[in-house]
Order: sequence, then C-alpha cells, then structure tokens
Amino acid sequence: MPRFDDITPVLDRLAIEVPSWAYGNSGTRFKVFSTPGTPRTPEEKIADAAQVHRLTGLAPTVALHIPWDKVDDYAALQRYANDQGVTLGTINSNTFQDDAYKLGSLTHTDAAVRRQAIDHHLECLEIMDATGSQDLKIWLADGSNYPGQADIRTRQDLLHEALAEIYAQLGAEQRLVLEYKFFEPAFYHTDVPDWGTSYAQVAALGDQAFVCLDTGHHAPGTNIEFIVAQLLRLGKLGSFDFNSRFYADDDLIVGAADPFQLFRIMAEVIRGGGLDEGSQVALMLDQCHNIEDKVPGQIRSVLNVQEMTARALLLDREALGKAQESGDVLAANAIYMDAFYTDVRPMLAGYRAARGLPEDPMAAFAESGYLPKIAAERVGGQQAGWGA
Amino acid sequence: MPRFDDITPVLDRLAIEVPSWAYGNSGTRFKVFSTPGTPRTPEEKIADAAQVHRLTGLAPTVALHIPWDKVDDYAALQRYANDQGVTLGTINSNTFQDDAYKLGSLTHTDAAVRRQAIDHHLECLEIMDATGSQDLKIWLADGSNYPGQADIRTRQDLLHEALAEIYAQLGAEQRLVLEYKFFEPAFYHTDVPDWGTSYAQVAALGDQAFVCLDTGHHAPGTNIEFIVAQLLRLGKLGSFDFNSRFYADDDLIVGAADPFQLFRIMAEVIRGGGLDEGSQVALMLDQCHNIEDKVPGQIRSVLNVQEMTARALLLDREALGKAQESGDVLAANAIYMDAFYTDVRPMLAGYRAARGLPEDPMAAFAESGYLPKIAAERVGGQQAGWGA
Amino acid sequence: MPRFDDITPVLDRLAIEVPSWAYGNSGTRFKVFSTPGTPRTPEEKIADAAQVHRLTGLAPTVALHIPWDKVDDYAALQRYANDQGVTLGTINSNTFQDDAYKLGSLTHTDAAVRRQAIDHHLECLEIMDATGSQDLKIWLADGSNYPGQADIRTRQDLLHEALAEIYAQLGAEQRLVLEYKFFEPAFYHTDVPDWGTSYAQVAALGDQAFVCLDTGHHAPGTNIEFIVAQLLRLGKLGSFDFNSRFYADDDLIVGAADPFQLFRIMAEVIRGGGLDEGSQVALMLDQCHNIEDKVPGQIRSVLNVQEMTARALLLDREALGKAQESGDVLAANAIYMDAFYTDVRPMLAGYRAARGLPEDPMAAFAESGYLPKIAAERVGGQQAGWGA
Amino acid sequence: MPRFDDITPVLDRLAIEVPSWAYGNSGTRFKVFSTPGTPRTPEEKIADAAQVHRLTGLAPTVALHIPWDKVDDYAALQRYANDQGVTLGTINSNTFQDDAYKLGSLTHTDAAVRRQAIDHHLECLEIMDATGSQDLKIWLADGSNYPGQADIRTRQDLLHEALAEIYAQLGAEQRLVLEYKFFEPAFYHTDVPDWGTSYAQVAALGDQAFVCLDTGHHAPGTNIEFIVAQLLRLGKLGSFDFNSRFYADDDLIVGAADPFQLFRIMAEVIRGGGLDEGSQVALMLDQCHNIEDKVPGQIRSVLNVQEMTARALLLDREALGKAQESGDVLAANAIYMDAFYTDVRPMLAGYRAARGLPEDPMAAFAESGYLPKIAAERVGGQQAGWGA
Repeated sequence: MPRFDDITPVLDRLAIEVPSWAYGNSGTRFKVFSTPGTPRTPEEKIADAAQVHRLTGLAPTVALHIPWDKVDDYAALQRYANDQGVTLGTINSNTFQDDAYKLGSLTHTDAAVRRQAIDHHLECLEIMDATGSQDLKIWLADGSNYPGQADIRTRQDLLHEALAEIYAQLGAEQRLVLEYKFFEPAFYHTDVPDWGTSYAQVAALGDQAFVCLDTGHHAPGTNIEFIVAQLLRLGKLGSFDFNSRFYADDDLIVGAADPFQLFRIMAEVIRGGGLDEGSQVALMLDQCHNIEDKVPGQIRSVLNVQEMTARALLLDREALGKAQESGDVLAANAIYMDAFYTDVRPMLAGYRAARGLPEDPMAAFAESGYLPKIAAERVGGQQAGWGA
Repeated sequence: MPRFDDITPVLDRLAIEVPSWAYGNSGTRFKVFSTPGTPRTPEEKIADAAQVHRLTGLAPTVALHIPWDKVDDYAALQRYANDQGVTLGTINSNTFQDDAYKLGSLTHTDAAVRRQAIDHHLECLEIMDATGSQDLKIWLADGSNYPGQADIRTRQDLLHEALAEIYAQLGAEQRLVLEYKFFEPAFYHTDVPDWGTSYAQVAALGDQAFVCLDTGHHAPGTNIEFIVAQLLRLGKLGSFDFNSRFYADDDLIVGAADPFQLFRIMAEVIRGGGLDEGSQVALMLDQCHNIEDKVPGQIRSVLNVQEMTARALLLDREALGKAQESGDVLAANAIYMDAFYTDVRPMLAGYRAARGLPEDPMAAFAESGYLPKIAAERVGGQQAGWGA
Repeated sequence: MPRFDDITPVLDRLAIEVPSWAYGNSGTRFKVFSTPGTPRTPEEKIADAAQVHRLTGLAPTVALHIPWDKVDDYAALQRYANDQGVTLGTINSNTFQDDAYKLGSLTHTDAAVRRQAIDHHLECLEIMDATGSQDLKIWLADGSNYPGQADIRTRQDLLHEALAEIYAQLGAEQRLVLEYKFFEPAFYHTDVPDWGTSYAQVAALGDQAFVCLDTGHHAPGTNIEFIVAQLLRLGKLGSFDFNSRFYADDDLIVGAADPFQLFRIMAEVIRGGGLDEGSQVALMLDQCHNIEDKVPGQIRSVLNVQEMTARALLLDREALGKAQESGDVLAANAIYMDAFYTDVRPMLAGYRAARGLPEDPMAAFAESGYLPKIAAERVGGQQAGWGA
Repeated sequence: MPRFDDITPVLDRLAIEVPSWAYGNSGTRFKVFSTPGTPRTPEEKIADAAQVHRLTGLAPTVALHIPWDKVDDYAALQRYANDQGVTLGTINSNTFQDDAYKLGSLTHTDAAVRRQAIDHHLECLEIMDATGSQDLKIWLADGSNYPGQADIRTRQDLLHEALAEIYAQLGAEQRLVLEYKFFEPAFYHTDVPDWGTSYAQVAALGDQAFVCLDTGHHAPGTNIEFIVAQLLRLGKLGSFDFNSRFYADDDLIVGAADPFQLFRIMAEVIRGGGLDEGSQVALMLDQCHNIEDKVPGQIRSVLNVQEMTARALLLDREALGKAQESGDVLAANAIYMDAFYTDVRPMLAGYRAARGLPEDPMAAFAESGYLPKIAAERVGGQQAGWGA
C-alpha cells in the first residue's frame, strides 16, 4: 500500500466545485423548509461557499445557475468572489422553470420555444465570457409523462440541432457538458436518460462537448464506476455532479448513502487518469440540503469526497494487478477492501494542519459562529431557494 | 366467459372517490405549472369533481384534505356538494407542511410536536362528524434522510401510541385507514414504508383500523395484486389510492403506465370480495395532474378503473379454476389474458347510454365547454394547489 | 385509424426467428424440470421449431447455438431444415460453459483464454459460411463478482481487440451483433452491461457491426422503446432478443409480463423503419420455457409479437402527430391507447385463414397430437437442454 | 465512543452458523464450475466447516440441508461434528428439487403433492430430534410464472394449513422459521415474497414460529435494517440468512457489496437486543461461492460479520441519542458514521490473539495447506453441489 505521503500531491490537486444553489432553501414537492440565515443574493451564496473553501481548502470555485444567479455586473461578482477567496465556475442553464417549457425546451415541438431555450443558452455563453467560466452545463428536464404524448425519435433530432447551434458559439477554451438523468421531472420518457444518449449526442458535436455524470441519476443497481471507466476510456467524461441517494432522490450528501460506492467511483477516476495533471474531469457537487444545515452540509460533502479519494489513492495497484492477473478473486478483493477500510481521517487531519487548515473543519465551522451570525444579519428580503 | 349483462350489477356498484386536490395546481419539486380555471376554493374543487361524476356516474364522493379544504361551515359545504350531485367522503390529514414537522409528526422525538400532530387528527375527526365522513386517512411523511438521524425502533413505538390515542376517539361508524409509502419525502427511512408495517400497526389498534394501499407506493417490481389478495385475506384492506407510475413518481393517471397491472389488481379485488355488496374496500384516486388538464384527467382515470374492472369481471373463473387445478400453465394464462384483451369499450358505451350518461364521457366533456367557462370565470384570487 | 387491410402488407413481412434452445429443457439454478418429448438432437429441435412456423407462418428461421447444435454436416442440417419448411438463421456463440471461461472469455486477463474464445467465434463464422447464416450473435457472460476482482477498464480494451479480430473475418454479407445485459451471471460488473457500451464497441468496429437488444436485459424501470428509437436513429439496431420479465429474470413468454410495453416497443420499431422493406432489424425470440410446454410456448410467443405489432400498426399516426404538435397530452395519449386497446384477434384469425393457416394456432397445435407423438417417439438418449 | 474492551463480552457471544452447502460446488443457471477438493459427503462438508471455526472461533455450528445431507445415522454425524469441534445446527428443508414440486409444494393445488411436502418437513423434524437441532427453516420456491397460472389467495390458505400441521409436531424446544424471498425461482408471484407475509403466517401459528430474514431477498432499495427493527419489536425475528448482492442475486460474500449496509443491520440488531444474552435471533450464512474458493470464502464472510458487529458495537449511543433528541441531523449522522469508519481490524487481531486464534485467519488458512490437501485427498466420487 502506498504511504500517505505518496498520495498528497494528488490530494493537493483535488478541487470540488460547489453549487450556489446548495446554500438556498430547497426541499421536496411536499414542502420546502426555510432556515434562518439563508442567502438572499448571489453574493451571500458566494460568501457561504467561501466558508467551505476557507475551512477545507477543497472548494475553490462556485457554480452559478442562470437565471437564479443573474446579476447586472458579472465582473463585479467575480471580483466579489475573488475577495472571498474563491472564483466563479461552471454556468448551469435552466430551461425548466419558465411556463413555456411545460412540454419541453430544446426538444419542444414548437420552434418558438426551442428558440427561447437556445437563446437562453447563448446568453449563458455570454455570461461565461464575462466570468471566464470554462463549462456550460446543460441538464434538461425535457421528456414526457404519457406514452404517445411525444415523438421520442423526432426529439432526439431536435436536440441535436439545438445543441449544435449552441456548440457553434463556444469559445476556444469553453466546453459544453451534457448531463443525463434516468427520470424526473418527466415520468415516462426523458430526452437524455442515460450515458449512452449523452455520449451519442456530444460525440456528434465535437471535441469540446462532454458528458456530465451525476451520481444520483441512474436506474437502481447501475454500476456507476463502470460508466466512469467507459467514459474516461472514450475521452468524454467532462464532469461529475456528486450527491447520493438511497432510492430515486438525488440530493443527499455525497457518500452518505453508500461510502463504498463513492470509493469505487474515485478508484475508477484515478485509474482512468481523472486526477492526473491536466485532467479534463471537473468535480462538482450537485445536491441541495432539505433538512440539514446547508454550509456544514457542503463541508461534510467535500470532506467525504476527499476521504474516499484518499482511500482510493492508497489502493495498492501493483499488488492488485498481480492478484487480478493470477485470478485470485479473494485476494484481489481483499487488497481492494483494505484500501477502503483504512481509516484515513487521522492522516487527513495532519495533512490539513500542515496546510494551515483546521484539522476538523466541521468542528471549526461549528465554533466559528458563522451560522448564528448570518441568521442575525440576513433578515428581511427574499430568501434564495430552488427556483430563486 | 361471462356475458356483459352478467357483470353490470357489479359495475353499478363501482364508485371511485376523487380527491379535491386533484383539481388544484400540482407538479414536481422543479416546477408547478399553473392553469387557467384552477379552483380557488373548496367549493370550486367540488364543482369540478361533480363534473366527473355527472359525465361518468362513477365518482359520487369527494375526498377532502385538511387544512387545504378547511371551511367554517362543513354542513354548508356538504349541502353545496349535494347540490352538485356528490357528497363529501374521506378526510385526509396533513402533517407534512407545517414547519414543526420538519423531522416528523406522530413519530417526532419532541412530545410537543407529537401533541400538535395528534390534535390535528382529532380536529379531522371533528370535521368527519360534521361532514358524516366514514374514513380518516393518514399518510405520514415521517422518516429520516440519513442513517443515524433517527431511532427507527423508538419511532414505531411512538407511532403506535399516537395512533392509539387517535383511534380511541373514532365514532362507532368511523374508520382509521393508514397508508404506507416506500419512500419520499424521507429518503433514508420511512416510518410506514410497507404493507407489513401498516398491517402490524392497524392490527394493534383494533377492528376499525385498516390499511390503505396506494398503487404508486411500492418498490420496483413489487407484485401489488399479491398484497391486495393478502390484505383482503387478513380482513384489513380498507381502501385504495389509485394512480400509476413508471419509476418512483406516483401521480400518473391510474392505468396509464401499465393497464395490465390495473387489470390484475382489480381481478384480485374481485376474487377477494372487494366489490361484493357491503365490502369494506373503498376505492379512491390519489393522483395530481402535472401537465394534463385536470378535470378530463380525472374523467380518464375513473374510466380506466371502470374499463379494467369490466375486463376483470369478464374473467371466466370456472374455466380458469379448472386450468389451474390441472396445472395447465399456458391454458390458465390464456384464459386470464382473454379477459384482459377483450375490448369492453363498446359495451361500456352502451352501458352508459342505458343509464342516461354520455357514451363517451371524454368527448362529452370536451364538448361541454366547461374548461373555457371556468377559465373565464375563475379570475383573480389564489389558485388552489398542492399545499393550498 | 388505418384499416386492417392497410396493415397486412407489413404483417406479411413479419418474421420472428426462434431459438433452437427453446425446445430443450431449461430452468433456474434451483432446478431444471425435464419433459417427455424433449429433443435429443439438433434435428429434433428443428422439427419442433418447424411446427411453430407451420401453424403460424411467423417463424421461418431457426437460430443455432454453438456448441450445443454442433453437427458434422451443416449443409445436411440446412437441407433437413428446408425439408421441414424452415431455414437456419443466426449463429450464437457460447463462451460461458467451458471451464476456461470461469473468469471471462474475450476479456480474460489470460491471452490463452482469449485466444480460445476468439477461435471459437472464428469457428462460428465457418459454420455461418456453411449454413449461409447472416448474423453472428455474441452475448458474453464476462464480468466479475467482487469489486477489485477485475480491471474494468483494461477489459474494455481487450474486448475491442478481440471483437476487431473476429470482425475482420466477417464475410461481405455477414454481420456481428453484440448483445448487452445488465447483469448475470456476473454479479458486480458485466463487460457489456448497457446499450451505450455495445454501441461504443460496435461503432468502433465498422458498418457490419450492430447492437442486439434483448428486452429482458435492462435495469428496473428502463424505457426500452427509447433505446429502440435511439439505436434506430443511430443506424445500429441489428436485432432483438424477445422475452419478458417481471423482475430480473428474462425467460418469460414475450409480452406476458407487460403487453403494453411490447406494444410500445413495436410502435417505435415501426416508427423508426424497423419493419420497412430491407430493414436491418432482425426479430428473434430468446427465451426458454421452465414450466410451460415448449412448442406451444413458442407459438404463444410469436403470436404475441404479431398481435402487438398489428395493434401498433393500427396507430393513427396522422392524428397522433397533430395531437403531439398541439400539445394536447390527453388526446395524444388517447390516440395511442386506442390502438393498444383495439382487439385485433378476430382480424388476425381471418388474416390467417386467408393464408391457409389455422385461425387459432394454439388450438390447432393442441389438436395436432404433436406433443403426445414426440413424447412417445423420443425415448432414450440424452434430452437437450440449456448447456447440451 | 465505547472502548474496545467494553464490547468484547458481546463479541464473545457472536456465533454465525455456516451452511453445509457452501462447501459444495454452486453457480448460476449458466454454469456450475467445479473445484478440486470439493466435498463428496456430509462429513467432508463438516470438516470444511470446522476449518472456519478453528481459525475464527465464530462458526460453532453447521446447518444441514435435507435431503442433500441425509445420512443413515445422525447421531454418528453429530459425533463426527463434535470431534471436529463443531455441532449440527438448523435443519433446512428442500421442496424445490423433486419433479413433483414443479408448480408448488406446500401450496400446490394437488393434495398429494402437499402431503409429500408436509411429510418431508415431518421427516426433517425427526432428523432434528436425532441431531438435537433447534430450528426447522423453511424456504419455499412456491409461486407462479404467469398471471392467471395460480390462485394467489387460495395458496395462502393452503400454506397456512400445511404450516399448521408441521408446527403442531414441533417439540417444546424447537422452532419453525419461515423465510421470505422477493422472487426466484418463481417469476410472477412468490407465495412468501415479503416480511409481511412471513410475519402474518408465523403469527397465525404461535409462539414457536418466527421469521427468517435473508439479506439478499428484497426489492431494490429496501431498507433492510428497518425490517430488522420492526421484527425485533414484534418479537418475531427468528434468524438471519446472511449474504450480499448488487442486483437480484443473493450469494455474494456478506458485506462484500455494501459493508455500510451490513453495519446498519448489525446496529439495529444490537439496538433491538438481538445480541443480548438469550436472544432468540440466530445468525447464519446462506451463500454459495461461484467463483471464489469456498472455505476461505466462508472465513471472509464470518469475519465480515464480526468486523461490522464490532464497529456497530462501538457506536456511541448516548451521544447519538442526544443528537437525535436535539434534531441535529448532521451531528447524529456523524456519530453514526464515526463508528462505521473506525478501523477495528487491528483491535480484532489482538482480540483473536488473546483467545488463541490466528490474528489473520485468512492468512492462517492460506498457510495451512488445507486446500491443496483436500484437493489431493478428495479424488473420485461425486462432488457435492447445489442439489447433491
């Protein structure tokens, strides 16, 4: 097994983008519970995100969601972020909360609605130019609820046309990242339901288009690390949306439902070069906190990714390779599990201390008084939330 | 196979309660789309529900949801309903939209929250006294999102205590019906996740407590008709909440996703006496319309139940029994499928005409001009919706 | 809605290949029950298959499985088949029942095992030359049971290398068809688990390589008709393996578990040109009969495909298109369901009679005395079965 | 968090029964791979099982499967076992491998088949008298593959009748334990598919009847620890069959697929008194090894249960209770995860050494030369396997 010191250079490269919307109120279709101190502006969201980075060193960038995070002056927002110690990252489009999109956006039968949706993405590209963001991430709610409601096949062609128009406007350093999701909010068919569809669509666009893998967006029982390996092999894994789930939900703290799965995913990311210098794989959280506190929920999340990455880095790949070659099933599995079972938390505490970070970021946050402070300060106004 | 005339007496008994909340706006956590003409009051919901009954003869009662349908004078509301040709039915409690219930209601660790939730149910019983309703239906959102968050075992005991206090206040003709749901909005554990739990809880209460089976609330692959058969055998199937789903959603039009499953369920209801005179099984819809029009969505739903019931009634049980006895797998299946494949729609059209109903209720509704009429009339005010 | 006469030209083209192994004994890992009259030779399997075609006109070809159906003289076997009124079709390879393949075949870490597996496929190509078969169908049991047991990524590369070598030996008129399967017999990872993997692999081979879609090989809740539409759009849907399932099994009579799903699949096949003249889509059964009689089980299966195809052909696509364009969800769904609910059985009985076939092939088979005849004749010898 | 020394008294009580059939060849419906050294007799299976106990101290009893383990003299077999350092445990009946049981056993429509199945269980009770076994474990393959094939409701009644007759013959110290399974080998309906059915059936029998929970026998996404808690609460959790699975299979090494789930299950067993002195909960493995070596596979399995039990015992329940009471979701989850993440392997090595056991039982087994020894000795004869 590698020594912990051997793996710190890779740990030093680990960066997990956090989403601005994680700090607003969110919930289920049954109820959104509100919390004192919830941000009311993009700036306040960024301030919260900066706390995560300050205490963990893991979250240097913040993803924005348009139109939720629209501001007049993106350069000023970027400066604000920089002052807080972070930078603006991925721009996420939104074509699911305008009344026009009830039956689709980029795949709608009505050309006018498609136009509106394409234009929204072109606007996102302009914002990216202003913020210097690299990635335009597209998740579509498009689909249908009833058999016969929509022509599945035509919608794939419309999707290609729309994506091609958006893709054509990408800058030389920009990327289009297409997310897939098994179902929801469409309940019969989804226009980008699986990695195969996302892959076929982005492959048809060109070298600057990639797949986004959201860990919560698969059918029950799907082997996600297999998809990671396959997409890395095909050169098309652009980014992760991390979260976890027990059922069909997808907003639990990453690693909370099945830490071993997160370990396996990170092991495959490493195996495929996803943490190498210059890797094209962007790591990001995409999860909202329904009942737990939001800022510490995000801290817990990035720490979970770090812990499982450290365990995966400790995998003794030489010994593993030999056991695999020799067909020794139990030995190979034991070597693999040995890395997972190794408790890296004390080593990571030391690692943090050596970098001027708190050994226990959760405790440090609790002691910081940040939550009562924002609860006192952020009074009045409209709390941000899913959809605002 | 029985002749259609043989089955009309049972069809005459078929009654499917419709939920008041089906007529309000509803949607997903991503977006609730609003519709012109959406009711603003309990009376307007009842007026919409009455349309369903007027055109189908299938929906004589309307379920209420408290507090969404709270009024000052329930006797007046009942008279209003009667004037529209329907009556008030099941009272549904709601312990998931008050801030106090963030971490539970009847199972909350805090006795004060449990008190509030119990008192809410006692208030529902008072409303039942005022409306003459028979059933108090309890669906709980209670559960937890993270392992360790809650003590699963203690919560079962607290649940029993709370239900027992509510049960003790039931009138002689009243029933408590406890619904189960596999997951959502709790994502790690749900306090009443399966029929076994609901059965164990209601069996501990007494003869006036029953299980409610919501067709959308099961794990993937669950054989629902088996549960129907089992609960009828145990004497504890109190009611159905009908809807359908492809994935984890549960608000599609009943029968839309898998009409054969609905057929099998109705076949087992009939097999177990659930459509006999004096049956204790109440049939009800529990589905909301996200993208389709609401009133015709409900009409389509009750028609689907009627159509699959008619097919199930046409099952040649004598021939089936013989094939089953003789172990002739293909013959037994063929007899079963023959009933399902029989197109009963022309016969049902005649059946309706003979009872003074439109042969094609969907067409009759479209021609009635009801939707444009309410769109024009119901302007201003707050549209009803999930949660209002 | 089209008239039945309009759709008969397409029905006339419908041909469903039947698998030789469907007539042998098969079962579960718990028990294989044997049946009197089970074939003992490839010829007897073909004789059984010919019964299916004789009574239905739907099954003109028989798929072989190598080595189960190895004979010394394939030309003689083809002549035998022709004498029975059928021809030999797809050749299916088998790399899962030799001890060497315990940990993989085309993806095994050991080059000698890969060599053996590749050579087996080259032998299959020689048999195809002898029989005049068009398709080499490859389903791989390759995968692993435990995390760490195998290197997922390397195995994809090995798979590509092996397939490329086999592909290079295809004749000008021959095709390689790669099947995917979600899981089983490997229980942690499968080397070709989903359509995306099969598509990526065959796309890398060339124009003569296609995907085989087995209807029983998907995760719970997967929208299979979406995959049909997508693969037809990408020009890579080579063939179907039909069967049905409720859970994770995949050997029930096609259409038995969810006839509406089979209807939707056939509707999408038709939509994408899969039943057009010269279509590249081959339809085939791949199901074994565990408890029901085998020959009538196959008859029931091809009839189910025919019935659902007829219903799908009756879909009023013009009216559907208009409803879809106008966003009328309920109307579009109603048009779609109208085709599904139409009972085509009487029309198909007439259609058969007009072609000199029995109106009711199941009854005709029962009356034919074929089963008692083979039970009496086929005594002694080794019954064929899964694996022999 | 408790100190390790605090938990050793409970660890000392930990005993996991191993199944005799785990040492024979087993596999999937596709292929059973054989292994040199596979036992040929019940005695050789017991000898293998004794190795597991010798090296781990965890597996003092061996479960038998009748008729696979039938012998003429059970007293002699018991003496043989005692000489090896173990004793005979649970007797498992088998009503799925006789031709008569093709369509059912205790639930078959034919009274003669039911008689045969009941008599088989009475014979098992006689064997229990001879071996001194406490538990008769009943798992039924009964069910149907096609809708209509069987009358679901009648079969429940037949099941009750048959179980009642068997139950009536139990000795005063004996128990009947009824296992449930979601599906397989029946693929449409299973007669005991869920805990609710097993509970309803055993509750109707009496105080000596219990539910057996097999960890691999649930629908996707089922919260198994909830069922553990519920059955313990109801006083009806009789035993566990441990194994693990990713999909629908159920024969992987317990804890291999999701160690955190095993932790949660053991935490709930402890919470509910399942490891208390005098607990009625029997722990047992029920898994077969398809590709890995069998004896070390069993050693790995009992060690996994021990490791996760130790972690679960380290849970700081006082702190957890406080966090739960205060509604601190993140804190409660963190306390819970802290126990799971604690690497108990070094402590367990010391614990073993203190008891005269090898610190690393897997390594000790590898060094023991046992596998090459039995491979050399056990030549000729019929290897045992699933079904023999």
